[in-house]
Amino acid sequence: MQQSIEQYMQHIGKQARSASQVLAFASTKTKNNALQAIHDALVAHQPQILAANKIDMERGQSNQLDAALLDRLELTHQRFQGMLDGLKDVINLKDPIGEVTDLAYRPSGIQLGKMRVPLGVVGMIYESRPNVTLEAASLALKSGNAIILRGGSEALESNKALAQAIQSALKQTELPYEAVQVIETADRAAVGELITLTDYVDVIIPRGGKGLIQRITNEARIPVIKHLDGNCHVYVEAQADMNKATPIAINAKTHRYGVCNAMETLLVDQAVADQFLPHIATLYEEKGVELRGCEKTQHILGDRVHPATEEDWYTEYLGPILAVKVVDNMNEAIVHINHYGSHHTDAIITENFSLAQEFLARVDSSSVVINASTRFADGFEYGLGAEIGISTDKIHARGPVGLEGLTSQKWIVLGHGEIRQ
Amino acid sequence: MQQSIEQYMQHIGKQARSASQVLAFASTKTKNNALQAIHDALVAHQPQILAANKIDMERGQSNQLDAALLDRLELTHQRFQGMLDGLKDVINLKDPIGEVTDLAYRPSGIQLGKMRVPLGVVGMIYESRPNVTLEAASLALKSGNAIILRGGSEALESNKALAQAIQSALKQTELPYEAVQVIETADRAAVGELITLTDYVDVIIPRGGKGLIQRITNEARIPVIKHLDGNCHVYVEAQADMNKATPIAINAKTHRYGVCNAMETLLVDQAVADQFLPHIATLYEEKGVELRGCEKTQHILGDRVHPATEEDWYTEYLGPILAVKVVDNMNEAIVHINHYGSHHTDAIITENFSLAQEFLARVDSSSVVINASTRFADGFEYGLGAEIGISTDKIHARGPVGLEGLTSQKWIVLGHGEIRQ
Repeated sequence: MQQSIEQYMQHIGKQARSASQVLAFASTKTKNNALQAIHDALVAHQPQILAANKIDMERGQSNQLDAALLDRLELTHQRFQGMLDGLKDVINLKDPIGEVTDLAYRPSGIQLGKMRVPLGVVGMIYESRPNVTLEAASLALKSGNAIILRGGSEALESNKALAQAIQSALKQTELPYEAVQVIETADRAAVGELITLTDYVDVIIPRGGKGLIQRITNEARIPVIKHLDGNCHVYVEAQADMNKATPIAINAKTHRYGVCNAMETLLVDQAVADQFLPHIATLYEEKGVELRGCEKTQHILGDRVHPATEEDWYTEYLGPILAVKVVDNMNEAIVHINHYGSHHTDAIITENFSLAQEFLARVDSSSVVINASTRFADGFEYGLGAEIGISTDKIHARGPVGLEGLTSQKWIVLGHGEIRQ
Repeated sequence: MQQSIEQYMQHIGKQARSASQVLAFASTKTKNNALQAIHDALVAHQPQILAANKIDMERGQSNQLDAALLDRLELTHQRFQGMLDGLKDVINLKDPIGEVTDLAYRPSGIQLGKMRVPLGVVGMIYESRPNVTLEAASLALKSGNAIILRGGSEALESNKALAQAIQSALKQTELPYEAVQVIETADRAAVGELITLTDYVDVIIPRGGKGLIQRITNEARIPVIKHLDGNCHVYVEAQADMNKATPIAINAKTHRYGVCNAMETLLVDQAVADQFLPHIATLYEEKGVELRGCEKTQHILGDRVHPATEEDWYTEYLGPILAVKVVDNMNEAIVHINHYGSHHTDAIITENFSLAQEFLARVDSSSVVINASTRFADGFEYGLGAEIGISTDKIHARGPVGLEGLTSQKWIVLGHGEIRQ
């Protein structure tokens, strides 16, 4: 490359900003036509894309990447079909842009309302998963945003091939092809530039390891939509219906281990611990889940449980390990969740109405759940259509972020010549 | 002070976080009782507060502060009454906390909705205006947030006296008195600590000069709700009703000069410039407003207008100066506004429905106005009750920030034992 990384990123940023101004005013039909054109271009470019992915895979194998990373990197036939289906789904989503709400007269005579608008330019930093490239690009387009994509360097060839297919499709439409840009360098300095392009980028969405996200958040000069980890809890309260508590405790931990909405700590009220713990421990043992318990748990379960350390209460295992703590009452459970948790998703199992109300109000998490599994906390289950990330922040988007998380609202004033008195 | 600034601010932060956990679950009645207690304590402490303000005023005078700053610093009888009235207004505002919206069943059987919750702890950095101390504290309490207040050092004695009254009142209520804390040191390092207390502060709201706000934004490690400036435009379109255009153009500029929603640049369509400009120029001359025009404006108005430089299009005069530009069409007006403006408040005067629609969609400002004065863009006129600031950002709050801007929404899931399939 002749130009410096800084010049290269400035150029990409400028192009994205310029494209975003066209996108912001594009009709739903224009955006859907563009998504359909991308769909068709993917079908046409499938051989080139799979060939590029093969290069990434071979390089990854010779670089001895671990099996899980290679698995995410691979564009199988099924994943390719998934990308095409995903595009169709996004076409069918309701366009959030231009929606006017709360339009009402003020005493001064003006009509005041809110109009939903795109954020502008989204910078997305993610792992080596080529299918995310399509997901993010399609959600950005549908919500009227331009997007700059920076996937893991291991997926560079795949992402370049995908970008070529997307841009060739956009060139056939009324939308500028710079609406979707892939950063075509493996140089890590590009990320540093991207997260400080204050004039050209409106929001950064990082995905990946906690360390990476923390570094990006610290260095970004642009708002970041992020979640660091999912240390989720289920609290089995004294008045829990055990026919609900048992399947939920099993589902929340064992339905999938490597996901951010899996339970990592089980809190059990002392009133039901003697009854509940031995039974649930047997079920976890059948699933191969290792238990790490507080002293009371150890007292009840004996050597069926390992001692938990202070560190365990903070840990997102993302695997078949579960921390277990017996608590005196709901207050102790809530204080524990708000202190050790990650404000992601936390559940109570109880039949007591007033305690359920209090739990809802006091637990400071992006999703608070009564009598259901924490596993429901995702974009598809919440009906957002698709998910570009999950936010554990309180500012802007919170919880699963779909199309609406990529938008903002501006005030609109419709007058009849009114002036301020 | 024995302890370091860092220790002092950590202590304040911890107390605020702890208070916020009580506030988040406080009932509307408890919060209103606390606001009433503060009202009564202000009345009782009035002599001490006014005496403290006198110390600040005398120090300010001997330090030769400028007249405008001294004016804002002074707690006159009228301003004191205004603070009391403001408290009553906040008591009468609807409590935003706990509101549940969009609660509906999902196909899985769970009920999914959103619950409005406080942000937690607000850090407010502002000018030497003691009445803002009360405004900010009361809005924070009503919305269930703890607040840390850092007013200008010139108002330190006034703010300490106000804090004493507020905390003495809170001690009589069910709310922790640490819900409202004033930073009691003039050391500037305290601001640097406040904006990096990531564990204890959820949002920073800076007010004051553009330089200060920019510095805070750059150094903060916490989300900032801010507006930098209000470079607002009125565009008189070719099909404008002159009976609306004239009073709006006068009102937007001359109603008050030193406010962020005053017009700073007037854009006039060339189709009506010959007719409109000479007439409006006469009215501005009567008001003592200096005009700075583009070449076409100069051609029409001759020596009644000064030549505008490129810098003028970017300038928020906050005084009786107005930049004037003749544009070829609405597209040029929109491009000008989005390029030179500050995304605050911009208006079009037109009778053309389709152009009005396009202006609404394309102008990228926190308030977009049709046929009314830009001066309406504030919290009271928008019915927010009171205003803690105006945001020109797109993330989280946009436009005037009232109670709702100090809140967030979390997802709530009400189940009946559902597990994920």
